[in-house]
Amino acid sequence: MFRVDLNCDLGESFGRYKLGEQEEILNYVTSANIACGFHAGDPSVMRETVKMAVAKGVKIGAHPGLPDLNGFGRRPMQITPQEGYDMVVYQIGALQGFLATFGEKMQHVKPHGALYNMAAKDPALAEAIAQAVYDVSPDLVLFGLADSELTKAGEKLGLQTAHEVFADRTYQADGSLTSRSQADALVTDEEQAVKQVVTMVKEGYILSQQHTKVALRADSVCIHGDGIHALAFAKYIRNTLENNHINVQAFYE
Amino acid sequence: MFRVDLNCDLGESFGRYKLGEQEEILNYVTSANIACGFHAGDPSVMRETVKMAVAKGVKIGAHPGLPDLNGFGRRPMQITPQEGYDMVVYQIGALQGFLATFGEKMQHVKPHGALYNMAAKDPALAEAIAQAVYDVSPDLVLFGLADSELTKAGEKLGLQTAHEVFADRTYQADGSLTSRSQADALVTDEEQAVKQVVTMVKEGYILSQQHTKVALRADSVCIHGDGIHALAFAKYIRNTLENNHINVQAFYE
Amino acid sequence: MFRVDLNCDLGESFGRYKLGEQEEILNYVTSANIACGFHAGDPSVMRETVKMAVAKGVKIGAHPGLPDLNGFGRRPMQITPQEGYDMVVYQIGALQGFLATFGEKMQHVKPHGALYNMAAKDPALAEAIAQAVYDVSPDLVLFGLADSELTKAGEKLGLQTAHEVFADRTYQADGSLTSRSQADALVTDEEQAVKQVVTMVKEGYILSQQHTKVALRADSVCIHGDGIHALAFAKYIRNTLENNHINVQAFYE
Amino acid sequence: MFRVDLNCDLGESFGRYKLGEQEEILNYVTSANIACGFHAGDPSVMRETVKMAVAKGVKIGAHPGLPDLNGFGRRPMQITPQEGYDMVVYQIGALQGFLATFGEKMQHVKPHGALYNMAAKDPALAEAIAQAVYDVSPDLVLFGLADSELTKAGEKLGLQTAHEVFADRTYQADGSLTSRSQADALVTDEEQAVKQVVTMVKEGYILSQQHTKVALRADSVCIHGDGIHALAFAKYIRNTLENNHINVQAFYE
Repeated sequence: MFRVDLNCDLGESFGRYKLGEQEEILNYVTSANIACGFHAGDPSVMRETVKMAVAKGVKIGAHPGLPDLNGFGRRPMQITPQEGYDMVVYQIGALQGFLATFGEKMQHVKPHGALYNMAAKDPALAEAIAQAVYDVSPDLVLFGLADSELTKAGEKLGLQTAHEVFADRTYQADGSLTSRSQADALVTDEEQAVKQVVTMVKEGYILSQQHTKVALRADSVCIHGDGIHALAFAKYIRNTLENNHINVQAFYE
Repeated sequence: MFRVDLNCDLGESFGRYKLGEQEEILNYVTSANIACGFHAGDPSVMRETVKMAVAKGVKIGAHPGLPDLNGFGRRPMQITPQEGYDMVVYQIGALQGFLATFGEKMQHVKPHGALYNMAAKDPALAEAIAQAVYDVSPDLVLFGLADSELTKAGEKLGLQTAHEVFADRTYQADGSLTSRSQADALVTDEEQAVKQVVTMVKEGYILSQQHTKVALRADSVCIHGDGIHALAFAKYIRNTLENNHINVQAFYE
Repeated sequence: MFRVDLNCDLGESFGRYKLGEQEEILNYVTSANIACGFHAGDPSVMRETVKMAVAKGVKIGAHPGLPDLNGFGRRPMQITPQEGYDMVVYQIGALQGFLATFGEKMQHVKPHGALYNMAAKDPALAEAIAQAVYDVSPDLVLFGLADSELTKAGEKLGLQTAHEVFADRTYQADGSLTSRSQADALVTDEEQAVKQVVTMVKEGYILSQQHTKVALRADSVCIHGDGIHALAFAKYIRNTLENNHINVQAFYE
Repeated sequence: MFRVDLNCDLGESFGRYKLGEQEEILNYVTSANIACGFHAGDPSVMRETVKMAVAKGVKIGAHPGLPDLNGFGRRPMQITPQEGYDMVVYQIGALQGFLATFGEKMQHVKPHGALYNMAAKDPALAEAIAQAVYDVSPDLVLFGLADSELTKAGEKLGLQTAHEVFADRTYQADGSLTSRSQADALVTDEEQAVKQVVTMVKEGYILSQQHTKVALRADSVCIHGDGIHALAFAKYIRNTLENNHINVQAFYE
């Protein structure tokens, strides 16, 4: 039986600032990545978001980012692996605090934005982040770009990893995402977007922009929680996956 | 057999900014309150400080503060009890992350600065903080000003509390600390300072500035880790307490 | 000839976080208070907002707040007058930097949120803020709650002050705003809201909730830039004021 | 007659955190670069530092940095030129606020840390920073690494630039500083350190580590204000320069 997890980012509001996430997205995803206060989120937003996810039975993960609220954690910063380790431990712990108040365990950790991208390519940073996750708890699932330095580092330590793929992004012959600066970076046709996920999950490959088949493991699909069509697409991808006999489920179920 | 705990604040550096704490203080105290990044401390400082305390066998507690690095958490802010709850959960969790990487458990929580003082007097805030500690883990010891709203709130929930006293501060007839704005706020004579602690621990009272005996429970004494005489005084108070047949020990030993 | 200024807060977005202000509000107000990065706003938002206001010919003022982005500057903090002075100088200067790049001069300074309210009541803080404004430039107009400690402090220094009134708030017999915790704090009828402004401007008094006439000087009216009806109300109040032969104009025109 | 400026970084404390700068350094330097609150400094520190420099007759410049207090502005961040422009305008303005309260004019702007290094190499960022300085005031002197993209960008706009050199660093054949990761990066002999400055000022070249003469313009020498020998070295370099008939003076004298 095939299976895949659907994840989305959550808890990105901050104080009076609300980001247009929709609680309804929790009806369709199985894992939620909750911001931890560095690139987005604050203690009160974290509590509310954990509460919401727990109520919906969605598994919870930490979504640690770079300490750059103004840049939303999207501006690469030159940090040392040790700094990466420390900021990931801190943020996982902070979110675990809220999970503890609900008697819940954390399922996973998925770095955010620039930290995610940096860890996909930089082995030293990837190892530091994987080690941070492992040291806090070897039971955590490490989410990373499929077949990246981050998943590799996690596997070396014996962590369960989730290779993440994207429904709405195109891929290159080497398995990397087409850069957003390219005209063909996005899959805009929803049917095609879901179809490429089905192919990845059931057949283990993606058709690259160079028309080659690239082997790619797909454990979790990233779903966006904001935007006008987010909910409709989430519902559509979930239904289509299930209609294709793919179990949509989290890792700890 | 009498017993008392000696605690000190630790981990108050931030990035390139070093506060003049001295690692040697860990030879004399039994509990360390580690800053959690809101009023002082950062993820790297927290890791280093936890490591140091673990190496010395000193028990570790979270020292959550108001989100005011520039004011060192000493400027009262009008926060709601819910905000107090959330920021305490967040900070306890963040420090627990580092403790987990060392396989250690947190012993206690002691609010810092203005948060400590506000929680000593404001029942609603005190209850919110005590509830935060309890919800994260009912095994944690809650440190608060002796016979204050905070210790009261902790006890109502069934938390173990540590009534904190000060060696170098004088007390009023109502059991409160003499305000620092008063000329007689400080006990400058070290012999007298230690003597008042011995009296509190063994006889359960303090002689107020009004020359009345005020009943006061003394579970832990706050020791300063900075200042020229800090180490000498820490050594002196520890030795004197032991010479007076008072066990100096933490709560989880 | 009667005159009054209409002012609104602007530039309250931060990084990826957008607040729902509407550029069209600039068609109706004559003065804009721009956030300076402490409670809201960031350097890029400030530049864009200044550009927008300059293009519309709206006069610009600094809107300095407490250093509390998470609380949007609405949580009172116990700061010293010196700290108040320093944070106001800093924020005025920062905004002046952007004004200089457009060859524009700053018209006014209006403290934000908790700083505004604290300065309305605390003479020492009010004097420190007025002094900060005066020291940066004695040509600046100081906006404060009508007949408050802040306007008083500005006048003592010889600063031009703008007594600010609210269209949508009710007043007490002592000239203070009815607390928002009271049921009758808000004027919800738009016609009545504008009528009370006309009375304040032309006849110099407000009818208090105790049905007494309270003398009140009305130099500027605060208009909200967010909310569904903001634009419609702004247009309505502007038209009505003009129809009542009241010139709607800024201070430097 | 030869001349050179001596500059040092100042005002790097933050709240309770003090950096070990010594006021006495102001007896030997002619220009002070004052931190503006992004990588170091806060409003109160800025006021105190400006006051101190004004009292000593030392010319004042803004020392804008990246928004990274925890990393002291030393961690490169990938910012857009527009973000660089905006953060420089903001910080210059903030410091100008304090200068205005003392009736003083700002002399110069010198980017700090990673921003300085990035601007030395990246033409787009260099142009954005130079434009920011020019737009705030074309009278400001732009300090940058000698013969770097930053000084080049300033000169293209018609700004007065100060080519900065280092007494205690060695240079490569291409005029760049020897990387600190190299064993021979530092000039540890004080006599040699000062001698290389005299040669740069009077003869316009530096002897590279490859034993070639590299043409280099030396308008200002960076002096460190912290460290044990800082004061002694500052005094020594000033005296030696004057004994070599080099006027030590700022740009606006």
